[in-house]
Amino acid sequence: MKKSVNNQQERLEIESWIVGFTDGEGCFSVSIIKNHTSRAGWQVFPEFVITQGKKSLPALEIFHKYFQCGKIYENKRYDNHKEHLYKYCVRSIHDLQIVIIPFFKKYKLQTAKSGDFESFAKILALMEQGKHLEEKGIKKIAKIIEKMNRKKTSRFLESSEAKCCAS
Amino acid sequence: MKKSVNNQQERLEIESWIVGFTDGEGCFSVSIIKNHTSRAGWQVFPEFVITQGKKSLPALEIFHKYFQCGKIYENKRYDNHKEHLYKYCVRSIHDLQIVIIPFFKKYKLQTAKSGDFESFAKILALMEQGKHLEEKGIKKIAKIIEKMNRKKTSRFLESSEAKCCAS
Repeated sequence: MKKSVNNQQERLEIESWIVGFTDGEGCFSVSIIKNHTSRAGWQVFPEFVITQGKKSLPALEIFHKYFQCGKIYENKRYDNHKEHLYKYCVRSIHDLQIVIIPFFKKYKLQTAKSGDFESFAKILALMEQGKHLEEKGIKKIAKIIEKMNRKKTSRFLESSEAKCCAS
Repeated sequence: MKKSVNNQQERLEIESWIVGFTDGEGCFSVSIIKNHTSRAGWQVFPEFVITQGKKSLPALEIFHKYFQCGKIYENKRYDNHKEHLYKYCVRSIHDLQIVIIPFFKKYKLQTAKSGDFESFAKILALMEQGKHLEEKGIKKIAKIIEKMNRKKTSRFLESSEAKCCAS
């Protein structure tokens, strides 16, 4: 019984640490990319990302181990920086809907990033209804992206490409 | 009894969130500043800082409320940025020694920032022994600063000013 309480406590510590680290370093990003093979000619590409230098790779491994989904990618840098970058990314729509969104609905972000998360969750809900497969739905998604933090003008709405990274 | 367990759980959530957010956004900084009124002609100035935009001020208030020390300062910006910056800073040597350092010794940082925190704690321990009041001690401190992450060359060691911000 004591072990179970300890495990529960340890889990709570990891969960709260994940929320804090995401408040600091997390990025809920949605891009709309031109794709001639898709029905509407555009593809909606949501992503949850945390980026760190190599020395902090163990922090990304905590995310990977806890969420049991997503991948860690190496972003090699050949500029003056001393270490390569690593990214923990969840790109699968299924994993975002089943794992990431329920987690951050349960454990609330404390910074302005919570608003970006709400927009991100709204877009994923529209995708669940298949709205991202038709132009009207993509337009709706592009408008939500425009309201997200650190927004860039939606290029989709200008008939090109829309991207937003609310980091 | 149940309330006490809930309070304990809530406290643990806040503590782990603070560690995660510090892993992302925290800065353990030590400067050595020329000061002709101090005995050695230099002053060692350690600081724990978290910076956020106005929209994320509530996150800084969590730190202030939990640690019961330090201050939140407004850093007005008149450039293209949409919001002013806010800083939660703990600068009092006493508060750093009694509150901040014991907290991060108990609740471990998970990123490379943990190494910077260790250096920071080492410097504070030297200050507790009064080593920062004599040139030999300041030299020792400047050498620790040089080993901290994102180090800048110690200007004190070049007889000027040394600053390191391991954010």
